[in-house]
Amino acid sequence: MEAVMNDAARVKAQTPRRRAPSAALLERLRQRFGERLSTSQATLLQHGSDESSYLPQPPDAVVYVQGSEEAAFVVRQCAAERVPVIGFGTGSSVEGHVLAVQGGVCVDFSQMNQVLAIRPNDLTATVQAGVTRGQLNAALAGSGFFFSVDPGADASIGGMVATAASGTNTVRYGTMRDNLVSLTVVTADGEVVRTASRARKSSAGYNLTQLYCGCEGTLGLICEVTVRLHPHPEACAAAVVSFPTVRDAVDSVIDAIQLGVPLARAEMLDALTLRAVNAHSRTTLPESPTLFLEFCGSKAQIDAQAELMREVVDSHGGGAFEWALRPEERSRLWTPRHHAYFACLQLKAGSRSLTTDACVPLSELAACIDETQADVAAHGLLAPIFGHVGDGNFHCLVLVDPEDPAQNEAAEAFSRRLVQRSLDHGGTSTGEHGVGLHKMRYLEDEHGTPGVALMRAIKKALDPHDIFNPGKVVTP
Amino acid sequence: MEAVMNDAARVKAQTPRRRAPSAALLERLRQRFGERLSTSQATLLQHGSDESSYLPQPPDAVVYVQGSEEAAFVVRQCAAERVPVIGFGTGSSVEGHVLAVQGGVCVDFSQMNQVLAIRPNDLTATVQAGVTRGQLNAALAGSGFFFSVDPGADASIGGMVATAASGTNTVRYGTMRDNLVSLTVVTADGEVVRTASRARKSSAGYNLTQLYCGCEGTLGLICEVTVRLHPHPEACAAAVVSFPTVRDAVDSVIDAIQLGVPLARAEMLDALTLRAVNAHSRTTLPESPTLFLEFCGSKAQIDAQAELMREVVDSHGGGAFEWALRPEERSRLWTPRHHAYFACLQLKAGSRSLTTDACVPLSELAACIDETQADVAAHGLLAPIFGHVGDGNFHCLVLVDPEDPAQNEAAEAFSRRLVQRSLDHGGTSTGEHGVGLHKMRYLEDEHGTPGVALMRAIKKALDPHDIFNPGKVVTP
Repeated sequence: MEAVMNDAARVKAQTPRRRAPSAALLERLRQRFGERLSTSQATLLQHGSDESSYLPQPPDAVVYVQGSEEAAFVVRQCAAERVPVIGFGTGSSVEGHVLAVQGGVCVDFSQMNQVLAIRPNDLTATVQAGVTRGQLNAALAGSGFFFSVDPGADASIGGMVATAASGTNTVRYGTMRDNLVSLTVVTADGEVVRTASRARKSSAGYNLTQLYCGCEGTLGLICEVTVRLHPHPEACAAAVVSFPTVRDAVDSVIDAIQLGVPLARAEMLDALTLRAVNAHSRTTLPESPTLFLEFCGSKAQIDAQAELMREVVDSHGGGAFEWALRPEERSRLWTPRHHAYFACLQLKAGSRSLTTDACVPLSELAACIDETQADVAAHGLLAPIFGHVGDGNFHCLVLVDPEDPAQNEAAEAFSRRLVQRSLDHGGTSTGEHGVGLHKMRYLEDEHGTPGVALMRAIKKALDPHDIFNPGKVVTP
Repeated sequence: MEAVMNDAARVKAQTPRRRAPSAALLERLRQRFGERLSTSQATLLQHGSDESSYLPQPPDAVVYVQGSEEAAFVVRQCAAERVPVIGFGTGSSVEGHVLAVQGGVCVDFSQMNQVLAIRPNDLTATVQAGVTRGQLNAALAGSGFFFSVDPGADASIGGMVATAASGTNTVRYGTMRDNLVSLTVVTADGEVVRTASRARKSSAGYNLTQLYCGCEGTLGLICEVTVRLHPHPEACAAAVVSFPTVRDAVDSVIDAIQLGVPLARAEMLDALTLRAVNAHSRTTLPESPTLFLEFCGSKAQIDAQAELMREVVDSHGGGAFEWALRPEERSRLWTPRHHAYFACLQLKAGSRSLTTDACVPLSELAACIDETQADVAAHGLLAPIFGHVGDGNFHCLVLVDPEDPAQNEAAEAFSRRLVQRSLDHGGTSTGEHGVGLHKMRYLEDEHGTPGVALMRAIKKALDPHDIFNPGKVVTP
């Protein structure tokens, strides 16, 4: 726990208060939840850490809720003592979202894992927040529909709402925001509120749904989610193609989008990522910038899309397409992309990754990646790059020895430069990972002081005592 | 002006204060804006009315701003005296949005009509708020791209953001919300704030863009808008087809969506609307429920879509398709739909329309329309129905003699029943027209007291002195 305390001390410089629940509060929670309240060190440690490079900061207690009313009960109890309440899905955040920097009670949603309704006629489903995207898609098997948002990890849908997640399908089907119909949230008063009806669109008052989406648990607890579903396309085809340069790969995707090719996925891996995946997956892919593509539709549509894409790729010096049509073949062809994150971590034994998340307008993407690769080279970093190029979003995995302060500082300095570069190119500090602990320092650079003042006013209005995931996004 | 005063008295029961600008404030505005400040009765009257059945409620002054900083100047001056500030685009609201129920200064955006940037590589454009959708599409001519949102009226894009407008293209291209990248707004402090970067997606803090979209000018002034563009499809085909019943027409659209047919438009007109358009446009269309459809893509894709749609329509007893391929033919074929609103008004000489805006989940649409037609018949109303059936959204135009209190009350009572019916079917009180003056009474029915409390808290946080379009959406 010493390391934890050291790290806590570092973060405490920003958020000095620690607000532990009283013994009486814990007793009330124990009376209500019995063994679904845990204060075991192992459980606390697990709930105080995520996939980021931050060291854990455990909460004081964990409650495994089974419904919105139970979550509301926890909030009312904690609100009375102004004790922090931190929602927890699967812990797959990469920005420190779940770290209990002020202590408090963690609300674990893993037992809120019911698919409440699947409505084929409405193309919607309603799930409890702890349902993962994998669980929902398993429940949808045979229905003819699927849930499209795929951030890589098998995250909880509540967590994906909290961070406004996206991922590889976004270029075709949109982000979590675009696939959201309605939420059930618990407010700071411990009220259970439905943010919208199940209509596909509405102009009835302020958009609470989109305010809670991306709030990272700082405005309330997200308990139920109604999402849009999409009909399975008739067929899909996957393709992999290499390019001389990153710019050629990126420009091919932009050209295709401009031509209206409805790419289902368009992922770019740089040469270093290819080296990592070859080593990890024992493949022999060319170690040059590579696009992983997916086309969906009828067979005729796929043929037409492929023909257009072939012309585009030719005009940018791309190589031959490797194709896969059947599901298992497509899955095999895409394996390098799916394993990229873990493959990259193994480029350097014992390393952790500081993962960046720049997202810029499409026209700026190639230049932004070029400049970033030059920065990586100039500073002698090990940082493979891959990204959702159809969205203008790319990740650098800056590999560091977690025990080496100099390496960590060099990675942080690189991340700062990259954020500034993204903003200079008209982009954002975070395309899909969220602010968490890590990006708070950039919020004013991105939104200006008056913009952050608006966010702060909203936080203060909806969470006046700063109980919801304090120390994240904006401070009071 | 007597009628105006009578109506003002009625609305004043809800919002009793009238907050006129002082002579000193008007003098400061005159010094800054010269002839771009108007207090002429004709100008005030024009700016105090819209397309709703409300009688006008004029502001005390109108300022024609030419940039965000000018709008900010007006806000700062008015904020100092807590005088209302009401944004005005083209006045095409149907819910009384622009009525100055507490007096104040109207900010007219018609001189903020510059298209600031068109970025083909990013598929975005940035416009001043007063640019209409028609002006933007004219500026895009020859670019290969278009702006998709089409609410019927040639509304200003700022106004479309304010009401979260949508319309006939929504089934394929989404609402104003879905086509929004970023806004520039003026806050209650008179600060100019950009709500987001130009990246296609972001998780950097609270979603200010979607909070201002749909706020109906009650949280700030919307001054600049960055929208998404879409590439023109290779080809389009329009089709018209009649059905025995509304349910058959609606179910055909739902089946098509479930099958993944990417309908570009899908509008349903009921038999009475067809009678109105036949009379208005001197056409001889069958006076039965009719779908107006549009398919876009390559010729092969259109053929495939048309074939699928033919099967679907056959299974629901639909008639023969009338087709049009060339732009001018398509326009002619769709003329009845485009003229439906004005054609319906002419069903009854001298009438105005109370226009409803129910929107329900797709699975509930046919039942909701059936029940609504039965209600129309039971109460002897004259109320043609048409709608964006792919969104679950339909409008009844309840035709009334504006001078007949009994007719107006019967229409209002019908509207109340319809809102309740929409909510009972899992829908919303307003799919695309907004709350304005007219739907405020239903907000608690739709969102519950705690939901409206959240909206009220947001309003109070961002507009503490209730200067922005007071008396609309939520009251303090």
